[in-house]
Amino acid sequence: MLICAVESLRRDWQVISSTTEFDDGHVAVLREKLLTPSRETERSWTTVRRKPAVVIAAMTAQQKLVLIRQERIPIRATIWEMPAGQVDELCNSQSLKEVAVRELREETGYELAPHGSLEFLGDFFSSPGFTDERAFLFLARPVEPSAAGHAHHESEAIVDCREVPVRELQRMIAADEVRDANTLAAFARLCARGIISIEA
Amino acid sequence: MLICAVESLRRDWQVISSTTEFDDGHVAVLREKLLTPSRETERSWTTVRRKPAVVIAAMTAQQKLVLIRQERIPIRATIWEMPAGQVDELCNSQSLKEVAVRELREETGYELAPHGSLEFLGDFFSSPGFTDERAFLFLARPVEPSAAGHAHHESEAIVDCREVPVRELQRMIAADEVRDANTLAAFARLCARGIISIEA
Repeated sequence: MLICAVESLRRDWQVISSTTEFDDGHVAVLREKLLTPSRETERSWTTVRRKPAVVIAAMTAQQKLVLIRQERIPIRATIWEMPAGQVDELCNSQSLKEVAVRELREETGYELAPHGSLEFLGDFFSSPGFTDERAFLFLARPVEPSAAGHAHHESEAIVDCREVPVRELQRMIAADEVRDANTLAAFARLCARGIISIEA
Repeated sequence: MLICAVESLRRDWQVISSTTEFDDGHVAVLREKLLTPSRETERSWTTVRRKPAVVIAAMTAQQKLVLIRQERIPIRATIWEMPAGQVDELCNSQSLKEVAVRELREETGYELAPHGSLEFLGDFFSSPGFTDERAFLFLARPVEPSAAGHAHHESEAIVDCREVPVRELQRMIAADEVRDANTLAAFARLCARGIISIEA
């Protein structure tokens, strides 16, 4: 049932002005004025720019998913989540896959098995009301521990890593023990695409 | 299998310094130096502060979910998503539920049926690597169109609203047509808790 349709004016997005209020290379804050498709009058907005990211659902041959436990300074908590990393330049799907494979190895110490493959699970926006941050989801399977081990960045604080059966991941999500958008979005796509099945 | 455990120092989070670089009431940017539980040396970080939010999975008696289509300026796109809204003060679960009910009514024109209830589905962090933004998920069921209709804010641009069967929401998520963390996180919790069942 459609209760609040508004006729679209079919006009493109048009930036009237944009002023950078802050930029330290990690985060940029813009004050913007725009014309949007649905309105005649301009809108003012504060937009936070961030680099895009990749998130890797890494599944072993035994159907277990590899999670890391990482200190997250903005929320003052150490949480279980899927490995992820930022993309310096958004070129093409090949470069995204390269970043995904590298982040998987660096953060978890796992790598694709010789017959393994990366499957694109679509993208998502972490909080489109205030930031353009966009994450690209990949399924890597099967993965196995790399002889080279992990290689954590100085800027990260990954304190643990483990393989979790799908049922256990389901339990952790249901119990609010997995609480980051990356892992929840990947789980949603894995379920929706029928790649993992869940217990009723 | 545990491949990269680090012994926790079991020290609390300790803020050494915090400087506000930007704050317009919607977004605040802080430069912080902290001691974290796992390290001896302090870490520097740029943290973006945002108000917490509520997200409402609104289900009709016919097991359909109510989605809105909203212009999202930071991503220059108009997307289908679950209704959501920011919380001005984080008091208690009662106030969160009040905000959830209000946002549902304002954004969609739906309200809880007389015998309906709100169920808390846990919370999540939209992007804990850079922001403290936290969203509280609620299931409202059953909902029904309100006689009062919707009441959109001037700051919003909601251009459409519709009821979507669970199977159709699953298809939209699988096909990358639903791409916001709020809706994907709510779908993940609904699946993980066995509240909705999905087709393999």
